[in-house]
Amino acid sequence: MALSEFNLIERFFCQQRVKNLSTQLGIGDDCALLTLPSGYQLAVTTDTMVENVHFFAGTDPAQLGHKLLAVNLSDLASMGAKPVSVSLALTLPTVNEDWLAAFAQGFLDLANRYHVDLIGGDTTAGPLTLTVHALGLVPQGKALTRSAAKVGDFIYVTGSLGDAGLGLKIKQGYVCHHPDDALQRFNCPSPQVEIGLALIDIAHACIDISDGLAADLGHILQKSQVGACLDWEALPLSCSTQDYIADTGDWLLPLTAGDDYELCFTVSPENSAHLSVPCHKIGIIEAQSGLRLRRSGGVQTLAMKGFEHFS
Amino acid sequence: MALSEFNLIERFFCQQRVKNLSTQLGIGDDCALLTLPSGYQLAVTTDTMVENVHFFAGTDPAQLGHKLLAVNLSDLASMGAKPVSVSLALTLPTVNEDWLAAFAQGFLDLANRYHVDLIGGDTTAGPLTLTVHALGLVPQGKALTRSAAKVGDFIYVTGSLGDAGLGLKIKQGYVCHHPDDALQRFNCPSPQVEIGLALIDIAHACIDISDGLAADLGHILQKSQVGACLDWEALPLSCSTQDYIADTGDWLLPLTAGDDYELCFTVSPENSAHLSVPCHKIGIIEAQSGLRLRRSGGVQTLAMKGFEHFS
Repeated sequence: MALSEFNLIERFFCQQRVKNLSTQLGIGDDCALLTLPSGYQLAVTTDTMVENVHFFAGTDPAQLGHKLLAVNLSDLASMGAKPVSVSLALTLPTVNEDWLAAFAQGFLDLANRYHVDLIGGDTTAGPLTLTVHALGLVPQGKALTRSAAKVGDFIYVTGSLGDAGLGLKIKQGYVCHHPDDALQRFNCPSPQVEIGLALIDIAHACIDISDGLAADLGHILQKSQVGACLDWEALPLSCSTQDYIADTGDWLLPLTAGDDYELCFTVSPENSAHLSVPCHKIGIIEAQSGLRLRRSGGVQTLAMKGFEHFS
Repeated sequence: MALSEFNLIERFFCQQRVKNLSTQLGIGDDCALLTLPSGYQLAVTTDTMVENVHFFAGTDPAQLGHKLLAVNLSDLASMGAKPVSVSLALTLPTVNEDWLAAFAQGFLDLANRYHVDLIGGDTTAGPLTLTVHALGLVPQGKALTRSAAKVGDFIYVTGSLGDAGLGLKIKQGYVCHHPDDALQRFNCPSPQVEIGLALIDIAHACIDISDGLAADLGHILQKSQVGACLDWEALPLSCSTQDYIADTGDWLLPLTAGDDYELCFTVSPENSAHLSVPCHKIGIIEAQSGLRLRRSGGVQTLAMKGFEHFS
């Protein structure tokens, strides 16, 4: 990394003091160095956000910094992993110091909330593209995977479904009477880190809802070689999303819209009595493959897909 | 990650079998899971390559896949870390299957050489931008850092200096009688992984030469709060680079051109007797700050900079 880039990162991102015991050497060398505790596995994830694909040009940089980190912490949460440290690869068309300062603030505020250290990265010139790589710790053998769902498990989700998708519709021009909550969900999602940690030894399979419930639950069903039936009446929908559906007829929104970053997980009937996290039971894992929805007195099959690039 | 993206990665990158003992769960879940041996620190690095900034449009995809991984393994090598696993964030303008197959081949051939597992990533649509995040292991407390140079240390480099820079000049139109070696060095650099490992307990400071010797040695000098004097006659230059300098007068090329991915390291006079790796002694660490060059009977001061984005 060249001197000026190095200074750029030093200036905006090194205000942060080391907060995580594992960080032995942070930003400023060829590599960061971590000492990890024994008895844990390292959970590793990467997510990229590209201007005009994942976010609109002109997006508030503080919100963008927050969201970029949130989507990565959400992946850790879905494995039941405690976040430890992150690296940031920033590709920027120009160096706008105000933009960078706000972006760094949004990013670091969320990092600080979870005692996550920014341990390195790369700054390059080019079209605005942001990649975070996140590391977390999960007790050895306890990670929540996509492949662990069992027939008979109850299916749960946290929060409400489709609000971020509604936020996107509002950004695209849909007129909503009370847009603030939906916009907040789209702009500043909250990773469900605490809930992921609390699901260890309770849940079987878990995933975060980034591409829509049908697509993400679909990953669990495929990896676990099972099927599922959801109950429309049980889906947690905000008043705004209910109004949107009544207004437009687009009832698929909460099933297919991405960006919710809530957790979807499965729990055995026995363990469901021990569930102590705020969540909603929305269906059951079945032996028959495929994803079904009980709605208006009938059962229909849902495509297991949501938002796709290159589709 | 949406289904079609997932399939893309599965198809081109999952031919690879798990080769590294640490990999408990590879591509296909929200996170990969690693179990790391005790007594080691985790070394973490990230590098991004952007089309038209770090490589020309139309670059051979197999060479690009190789180089992208090589520059990251080079960062691990410069800490004395053994590479373990990598994640790949691919931002692609379109899905060209031939391009992807060749890129994956170049990437995985090098990964396989070092028993490195590709454990995850993200595939997104957008301007061609490639980010690798690499993890390595180094014995606890033994990492080679930029800040460990001591006054009196001898300065060494591996390989020869400026050949990749000459390769870039050739790509830009410079006519060289024997261009193949320089082009190979530019297109397909070799990370000095084995040499990095062999320098543990021998070298003090170490860095890889990605932005030019003056800039990268400059990082060592700044972090170690020392200076250095190099001996022009001792710099290892290939015949092609010597011819280029004789032809153009551009004698700064081997000091400022990037992309060599050789190692520059410092060793105490006592330890230099134990050096068993192929390398060249090019100067000495001094108490006086700054970087100096002994050349043509005089000593001149060098700017500690090389290639910079945003400069």
